[in-house]
Amino acid sequence: MKAEIIAVGSELLTPDRLDTNSLFLTEELNKLGIEVVRKTIVGDNRELLAEAFRDALDRVPLIIASGGLGPTEDDLTRETAAELLGRKLVLNDAILRYIEGRFRQLGREMPAVNVRQAMVPEGAEVLENPRGSAPGLWLEDKGRFIALLPGPPRELKPMYHEQVLPRLERRSSGIRMFHRELRVAGMGESAVEQRIKPIYTRYSDVNTTILAAPGEIQIHLRLWTDDAAHAQKTLDEIVQGFELALTDRIFSQDGSSLDEVVARILTMNSATISTAESCTGGLLAQRLTSIAGSSSYFLGGLVCYSNDLKTAWANVPSEIIQSKGAVSSEVAIALADGIRRSSGSTLGVGITGVAGPGGGSEEKPVGTVHIALSHAGGVKERGVRFPGDREAIRWHASQLGLDMVRIHFLYNGGEPPARGSKRS
Amino acid sequence: MKAEIIAVGSELLTPDRLDTNSLFLTEELNKLGIEVVRKTIVGDNRELLAEAFRDALDRVPLIIASGGLGPTEDDLTRETAAELLGRKLVLNDAILRYIEGRFRQLGREMPAVNVRQAMVPEGAEVLENPRGSAPGLWLEDKGRFIALLPGPPRELKPMYHEQVLPRLERRSSGIRMFHRELRVAGMGESAVEQRIKPIYTRYSDVNTTILAAPGEIQIHLRLWTDDAAHAQKTLDEIVQGFELALTDRIFSQDGSSLDEVVARILTMNSATISTAESCTGGLLAQRLTSIAGSSSYFLGGLVCYSNDLKTAWANVPSEIIQSKGAVSSEVAIALADGIRRSSGSTLGVGITGVAGPGGGSEEKPVGTVHIALSHAGGVKERGVRFPGDREAIRWHASQLGLDMVRIHFLYNGGEPPARGSKRS
Repeated sequence: MKAEIIAVGSELLTPDRLDTNSLFLTEELNKLGIEVVRKTIVGDNRELLAEAFRDALDRVPLIIASGGLGPTEDDLTRETAAELLGRKLVLNDAILRYIEGRFRQLGREMPAVNVRQAMVPEGAEVLENPRGSAPGLWLEDKGRFIALLPGPPRELKPMYHEQVLPRLERRSSGIRMFHRELRVAGMGESAVEQRIKPIYTRYSDVNTTILAAPGEIQIHLRLWTDDAAHAQKTLDEIVQGFELALTDRIFSQDGSSLDEVVARILTMNSATISTAESCTGGLLAQRLTSIAGSSSYFLGGLVCYSNDLKTAWANVPSEIIQSKGAVSSEVAIALADGIRRSSGSTLGVGITGVAGPGGGSEEKPVGTVHIALSHAGGVKERGVRFPGDREAIRWHASQLGLDMVRIHFLYNGGEPPARGSKRS
Repeated sequence: MKAEIIAVGSELLTPDRLDTNSLFLTEELNKLGIEVVRKTIVGDNRELLAEAFRDALDRVPLIIASGGLGPTEDDLTRETAAELLGRKLVLNDAILRYIEGRFRQLGREMPAVNVRQAMVPEGAEVLENPRGSAPGLWLEDKGRFIALLPGPPRELKPMYHEQVLPRLERRSSGIRMFHRELRVAGMGESAVEQRIKPIYTRYSDVNTTILAAPGEIQIHLRLWTDDAAHAQKTLDEIVQGFELALTDRIFSQDGSSLDEVVARILTMNSATISTAESCTGGLLAQRLTSIAGSSSYFLGGLVCYSNDLKTAWANVPSEIIQSKGAVSSEVAIALADGIRRSSGSTLGVGITGVAGPGGGSEEKPVGTVHIALSHAGGVKERGVRFPGDREAIRWHASQLGLDMVRIHFLYNGGEPPARGSKRS
């Protein structure tokens, strides 16, 4: 089956916003063997919107549209679809009551404009939206299907999974996409490519994509077939090859983020952790606590920007700061040790560095970061120089901090085995 | 003038790649008063490509296309444009010599396929590409203009500046886009809409877009005209109207983020700040330190997840935690006071709440957050219930924390004046 994606919203035609929903939707549709043959981005304009839908309906049997379901005058998707299919818009009481309830829960009265969101083309199926006020709509017309989804990704994605996917599965051909995603930390894109190319080039039916994301490399393997056993065997083989080539640098094989992987490791090991950060300004603590249930392993964090607070809060001896400088392996270690002792956690992580753009020197240029991991058996420290701007440096530093925790448990607190290839 | 952007390339219809050239092109076209009314992304398919160009030519006088100018069979943009305009493709000797020269420089023979890149529709102007082998093309036909540009951004951007821009400027009508952006905190999309709608609907020549971003609403005003004085006057008038309608809820009139605005306010007031966070896990500290130069106002932050550390680090009396609960206005105030005293900062912010998904109760459901701002003259506290998931609740809480700092300085540390309308 072929599909088109239409993203609706004048903001997507400005220099400020890009339609990103289509990446998610494409990935999901591909899994069902549905090919996306065109993406159209139109503004909140009745005529242009109608033309985009009309043309797409002439070409393909499936249209997934996002956006334009809000409560304002600008939001024209409902009206346009109804008009094109020659259907009336009717007030749906259930939706109206739901929206009113949502506002009541938040202690507010529903503004009159929101009634628009309860108007539904005759015969449309309502796709409930527990995460927002705009419900989605599913329309069928002469063998063609139209899904109208809300624009915000946090509403669109679960709505797709819960309500669009089951409807598409009922109508699908049997061909499926089989997909594996590996994530790699501590290596650059070309280094990864060099090690795995001899492996993946042997499999001509598998599509391999290597993507550089901040602080990590993502490898996607995709295979379309109706033979699930063949797909699993082939992908298993490739992944085993990659594991030999990349060793402990692969931190995830299921699309989990490093935050999630570390959260899982800490929970499994009944370990607790605390942080003392300087240049990352709380980013590491924030990432460690971004996962639900983090209170079971995260005890507390210090953000000690000033030298005085490094001493007062984390017991970093001021002599060390004076003799070695605030950005030094010694201070990173003192921060990690200090926070572990003061909070009573299993692990303590200390980070100090120069995130820039100011504050660099010849000896310690912008990007210089020291990270230490303190545990009952001792301390590990790494000094690195990260490329990029302030945001990139802070992200890389938090990424390495998390990865040091991962590696620590991978080798039961010991050192990784020596090996020929150097880590980048 | 109105324009459409067509991005050509099957890779742009996969889950991994997004067309980003269009953001650059839109920004540039808008500067000339050219409005982008549609973006289309098509694969390397002769029929679909032809349809996309044909439809766009029917709608607008300017098409900017990117991609599909390479040397392979897949690269169909040249052929398609020629066919549509009823022109022959002819071999351009100058381009051929240039491409051959490029290969010679690299010490290689030009592969036969590259001859395709020297084929040019009759009457087309060649846009040289010193950064790649594919030249661009400029076509004029019955008052319509088509620019065919290479896909790689590092080739497309300079080609636009050096060769497309001068051609557009020669034909430009003198009409320019005038743009204002207001950002609003502490109000929902429909509440903003309701207050400002009576104002902006009076200006039919101004395009008003209201965007909901996490924790804030962005209002864009765009006006296309050749009369700069009229534009400034009109936009000033609307903005003044919005200021009356939204009062202190507008935090930015130049596109600055709340992080940037608060950083500027703290710097201007020579104030320092420290934070003591529970449910936001360091997010507030991270945002306060995300701006270059933050060490001049940010002293330090505590992330005290456990109750013990709330007491040990921020001197929150354990009796208060016991009697009022960790999520209470009393604890928020104690955190704010405690951190201000312990760090010696001008301001202290304390946040405690239930970010979920677990930990909620009937009395204190998920989303309940208390935020306090402590200053020399006293303390302000707000208890709120935020909607959404863990990430949204944490973001909203950090947003309100920052906004309380902004409001504090707006009224010189006093209270906002009483007013009829309730804040949400």
